[in-house]
Amino acid sequence: MTETFVIAQGGGPTAVINQTLVGSVLEARQRYPGARVLGARHGVRGVRDGDFVDLSALTDEELKRVAATPSAALGSTRDKPDAAYCETILKGLRQAGATAFIYIGGNDTAGTQQILAEAAGGDIAFVHAPKTIDNDLVENDHTPGFISAAEFVAGAFLSVDLDFRALPGIYVGIVMGRHAGFLTAAAAAWRQDEESAPHLVYVPERAFSAARFTEDVRAIVSRHGRCIVAMSEGVATEDGRALVETLVPPDRLERDAHGNIRLSGGDLGMAVERLLKDDLPGTRARVDTFGYLPRGNIGTINPTDAREAFEAGTFAVEAAAHGGGSVALRYENGATVPRLVPLADVAGKTRHMPDDFLLPDANQVSAQCMAYMERLLPRRFDPAKPFV
Amino acid sequence: MTETFVIAQGGGPTAVINQTLVGSVLEARQRYPGARVLGARHGVRGVRDGDFVDLSALTDEELKRVAATPSAALGSTRDKPDAAYCETILKGLRQAGATAFIYIGGNDTAGTQQILAEAAGGDIAFVHAPKTIDNDLVENDHTPGFISAAEFVAGAFLSVDLDFRALPGIYVGIVMGRHAGFLTAAAAAWRQDEESAPHLVYVPERAFSAARFTEDVRAIVSRHGRCIVAMSEGVATEDGRALVETLVPPDRLERDAHGNIRLSGGDLGMAVERLLKDDLPGTRARVDTFGYLPRGNIGTINPTDAREAFEAGTFAVEAAAHGGGSVALRYENGATVPRLVPLADVAGKTRHMPDDFLLPDANQVSAQCMAYMERLLPRRFDPAKPFV
Repeated sequence: MTETFVIAQGGGPTAVINQTLVGSVLEARQRYPGARVLGARHGVRGVRDGDFVDLSALTDEELKRVAATPSAALGSTRDKPDAAYCETILKGLRQAGATAFIYIGGNDTAGTQQILAEAAGGDIAFVHAPKTIDNDLVENDHTPGFISAAEFVAGAFLSVDLDFRALPGIYVGIVMGRHAGFLTAAAAAWRQDEESAPHLVYVPERAFSAARFTEDVRAIVSRHGRCIVAMSEGVATEDGRALVETLVPPDRLERDAHGNIRLSGGDLGMAVERLLKDDLPGTRARVDTFGYLPRGNIGTINPTDAREAFEAGTFAVEAAAHGGGSVALRYENGATVPRLVPLADVAGKTRHMPDDFLLPDANQVSAQCMAYMERLLPRRFDPAKPFV
Repeated sequence: MTETFVIAQGGGPTAVINQTLVGSVLEARQRYPGARVLGARHGVRGVRDGDFVDLSALTDEELKRVAATPSAALGSTRDKPDAAYCETILKGLRQAGATAFIYIGGNDTAGTQQILAEAAGGDIAFVHAPKTIDNDLVENDHTPGFISAAEFVAGAFLSVDLDFRALPGIYVGIVMGRHAGFLTAAAAAWRQDEESAPHLVYVPERAFSAARFTEDVRAIVSRHGRCIVAMSEGVATEDGRALVETLVPPDRLERDAHGNIRLSGGDLGMAVERLLKDDLPGTRARVDTFGYLPRGNIGTINPTDAREAFEAGTFAVEAAAHGGGSVALRYENGATVPRLVPLADVAGKTRHMPDDFLLPDANQVSAQCMAYMERLLPRRFDPAKPFV
């Protein structure tokens, strides 16, 4: 029987998601000469609708150029299929003659694969290949896409710190991350010394108090003459509500099809800015919402991230030969290696920052967190200490 | 007489402003062995207060590390001195025994130098060395700092375009620039083809109409399935009022000491997002305010920009020997060269984008603008065309 691989990309794109795609294509072609490799446009939508790109036909050179390009080349989707939708996907896979379906994405994507694997009953291998800038997949030491996005964030905070040394004030950078604070914590990766930004780090793993926040900022300003804050868009108050929900009028809140409040806009940023203006009048305060800039930025594609994403793709083909599952990046004996874990272990679960990554009494990352970040993100720059 | 150079940095920092500083220091030390070179902390404030760093004492290696560091190492200031303030600066310069004062900054900085030169009456050489990400200095082909910031913006729009091909919608990126649209127009520098972002470009040089804007966006969405917009924070309506002033409630507008409305916040972004939601309901629309991220970003220091900034610094010492003036970067016979022009020609004047840089009937840059951008910003990336 001819092997037919169907590959798709789901969820928010990353800078290296096409490395995983191309890793799978090249490995499938090498391992199974004559295999068909079909790319589905816009994730499971393309599978359902029979909307495929024939990836078998591309030259290695064309594929390598695709690999080096950020954001999902096949297009992506936010669809989270239910059982009925999954039936239409299965039908699409069977019509395409699929022997394996590799779906590159986050924990929702793993969830879709789990439903499909259970419904299909064994004739197709379902593989989830990891991808997320949020770094929130359980079973993984870190996820492809995270390091590149983290490098953008680390460089931005290093740079903004220098800017605010030159012209003092308060700066808050709001970073993507609904439930996990890894990407926000990466702001600290390239700190130079105890005085360096970010001076305060607010992540979804710790309850946010507006009163405590402005007190913290005031204390830092009086100590360092400036205060740089890294804040996750998903920070929540003690009662579990997203901060944006407590600060923004209800008629201004936007929800997605799943009822989740939209976090990536600037509303939170503006609310935080007003909070600072009310409580610390007269101090220059600026808030930037990083939004999409770190996610698939062509200027900060990290070579390690690219290599690991590619290897996750080649390993996904190996995983298909073993009947499917979820590819997880482990850190073993000083190296990152892909391993196969059951889909159910990853599906729909969220990995949070370990508790010891945060100092118990301060809104700041710990030495453990710094060690993790320094391992993933070796320092790329060594700026001079300003004269001020 | 021992030569004593006082050097200061003013206004918003850039990624290469320290190249100019170090270029001046090294040239002064080489040209005048034994010269004293003093750096004033926080611009003219440091001159007034006698707050100096002895730059003569640093090794070449230390200075080269400073040069490679973004944002004003001496600190900066937003002070725009009046005649009385200028008297205190002059006093500070004389107390330091200054024979030359090199002030690195934009058109306000040139203005300060002009006042000082007139008040001093010839015993000190006053030199303005150019610096601004806004690229808005007259007499200059382009300004040190612009290319690096432009590279950030060009890369960001190339990346966001790929992101929004994968997950379609409307995206607006708001870019610094009060009166000149160069940095916003740089969003187009790395367009790949007619379908590439930015699909619409709004700059202060053209009157903004909210109705026309949402119509434009609607037309692009129906043509390309997505719409990426580059917008200057300083866009203004037909009556000359800043757009942010027309969209944001008056009690939310912030003004600086000079009465200028603050533009760099996210208020404009939120107002634009609501405009899109009202007029194009049901279409995913996201606005990011780039804010400080392009300005002194350590990840996008352009080598040409760094070299030209350094050369502007060395030339400033030469300019001092000629009695002072403003250093201007000209483009002559295929090369960028520094020239000396009178302070009065640059002081307080704003260079706008040439009219032919914008298409007359569309919110888009022209072939002339693209040629200019491509000359300054050679394409750094060649991503593959996505399959969607």
